[in-house]
Amino acid sequence: MATIKDVAGAAGVSVATVSRVLNDNGYVHKETRIRVMAAMEKLNYYPNEVARSLYKRESRLIGLLLPDITNPFFPQLARGAEDELNREGYRLIFGNSDEELNKELEYLQTFKQNHVAGIIAATNYPHLEEYSGIDQPVVFLDRTPEGAPSVSSDGHTGGKLAAEAIVHGKSKHITLLKGPAHLPTAQDRFHGALEVLQQAGVDFQIIETASFSFKDAQALAKELFVLYPETDGVIASNDIQAAAVLHEALRHGKKVPEDIQIIGYDDIPQSELLFPPLSTIKQPAYDMGKEAAKLLLSIIKKQPLAETAIQMPVMYIRRNTTRKEENDA
Amino acid sequence: MATIKDVAGAAGVSVATVSRVLNDNGYVHKETRIRVMAAMEKLNYYPNEVARSLYKRESRLIGLLLPDITNPFFPQLARGAEDELNREGYRLIFGNSDEELNKELEYLQTFKQNHVAGIIAATNYPHLEEYSGIDQPVVFLDRTPEGAPSVSSDGHTGGKLAAEAIVHGKSKHITLLKGPAHLPTAQDRFHGALEVLQQAGVDFQIIETASFSFKDAQALAKELFVLYPETDGVIASNDIQAAAVLHEALRHGKKVPEDIQIIGYDDIPQSELLFPPLSTIKQPAYDMGKEAAKLLLSIIKKQPLAETAIQMPVMYIRRNTTRKEENDA
Repeated sequence: MATIKDVAGAAGVSVATVSRVLNDNGYVHKETRIRVMAAMEKLNYYPNEVARSLYKRESRLIGLLLPDITNPFFPQLARGAEDELNREGYRLIFGNSDEELNKELEYLQTFKQNHVAGIIAATNYPHLEEYSGIDQPVVFLDRTPEGAPSVSSDGHTGGKLAAEAIVHGKSKHITLLKGPAHLPTAQDRFHGALEVLQQAGVDFQIIETASFSFKDAQALAKELFVLYPETDGVIASNDIQAAAVLHEALRHGKKVPEDIQIIGYDDIPQSELLFPPLSTIKQPAYDMGKEAAKLLLSIIKKQPLAETAIQMPVMYIRRNTTRKEENDA
Repeated sequence: MATIKDVAGAAGVSVATVSRVLNDNGYVHKETRIRVMAAMEKLNYYPNEVARSLYKRESRLIGLLLPDITNPFFPQLARGAEDELNREGYRLIFGNSDEELNKELEYLQTFKQNHVAGIIAATNYPHLEEYSGIDQPVVFLDRTPEGAPSVSSDGHTGGKLAAEAIVHGKSKHITLLKGPAHLPTAQDRFHGALEVLQQAGVDFQIIETASFSFKDAQALAKELFVLYPETDGVIASNDIQAAAVLHEALRHGKKVPEDIQIIGYDDIPQSELLFPPLSTIKQPAYDMGKEAAKLLLSIIKKQPLAETAIQMPVMYIRRNTTRKEENDA
């Protein structure tokens, strides 16, 4: 591969002159400039990506910030974004913030410093000053601030659908898992479910949960049946929690859904493999990632936007951990 | 934040001169250079990361290539690498090759062009020319070539342990799932298991599997009980396959492990949440990622290396889908 030295040699100028042509700064005589550019073309010399992105301030790289890659929901989002971006000739690099502000700031800095063309951020901190001071377009995904370009799903409706499924299936002693207080998405679905339970006038209690981790889900499921052994309906805050509750219910010899109904949230690929397969609220994770990528590309290409805050529909998927509604066919 | 123009103004020189100082190319008078550097220090001006990595050819960025982020095994690897790298002040960016050569090459190019300090590659193509022509140190993870720095786990022994568990639990009609033919890791465990089954002289058959995807796992599990309804022991090629087989066995009304034993491979976090919880061969995914990061950092820092091909031990985790060996306590 040709180097900058080869170009300088072929054009009969110094490396510094080639560099000035590339940089487009400092005086270079017009004829010299043409000679340098001809040499570059002849030698098939392209300044590397860094040099190009440095001087032209553009790249085909998109940064994606995810809060937790070990939660199967997020790799699905990522795959959707990735497929769409690849189709359009962009590449996606990921950073995993692990829900830590510090790491998120570091990745933002990394993305900016490497001059990504745009950022897709699934962040817990959409109101960070760092997002408003950013040169590159940002699309928020899943966890979104008002007024900014974003793709999310309708968590409030999702929570309502989950609670309705449990209420219609005639559970009498319902336990509602609140989900981490610091995650707005978890709180949206919680409030949706709460609204339905209050209106239905059923007996229910709430357990607060610290995180979405596997370890916490297991501990929570054990605690649930100690605190509320009469529970006959559980509205979980995500599928991992629901899987842990299902496990614990079966371990206690309960029949699902006859003795106890359980509903999850997300519809991660694993949920269909559980036995009985898990009823859940489907978030269209892959499509959400895809839409976020489309929106970001439209912004990068300065295309007119139909809408900038896209909310995707959620859907109740009845499998075998909830009972059929009486008016079902 | 100060810009290059501010520095030029403060030093009383042109932007091109500041640029030459930064680039360390082209003639700059010593006194001028000192004046520029003093101005940079006074204004707290640091050339951005790209500029620095361009000229100094170093960065604190590590590229990690993963074959499939939707397989929960790989996010665990990534988390291990990430924690170790963060501890040492490096940042990790991910690329997901989706098991496609094309995408892998593109990510390698992206990593190189952005001057990462090193690369950790979980690749299906460790013998690619692109890996030998690379300036940055590369550590291969999980899927490894001979002679190169690498971290893997002992798949052959893992396969043997899996088959021994099923044989010792007295299954009579065993089905061995072969795993994707193009994945050396899957083939290692397959050959280990095959060796044990042949030596034991038990009745067994083999089913070939095309991929590790959820969809394929479900189809495969259904096919298994159609082709070999008398199967009373299944050695799966990974935990996702095993989960699908467990699901299908329970759906057929079989008791696990009384009627049929099932063993997985990997020990992804989900496996403990299945019911009955899945017996499996544990690969220390998180620690493998951590070791790969340590090895890479040692190479980057030019530290003496004790060993460059690290093979981590695997372990049989008996949960409730395999029977106790007769000589167990």
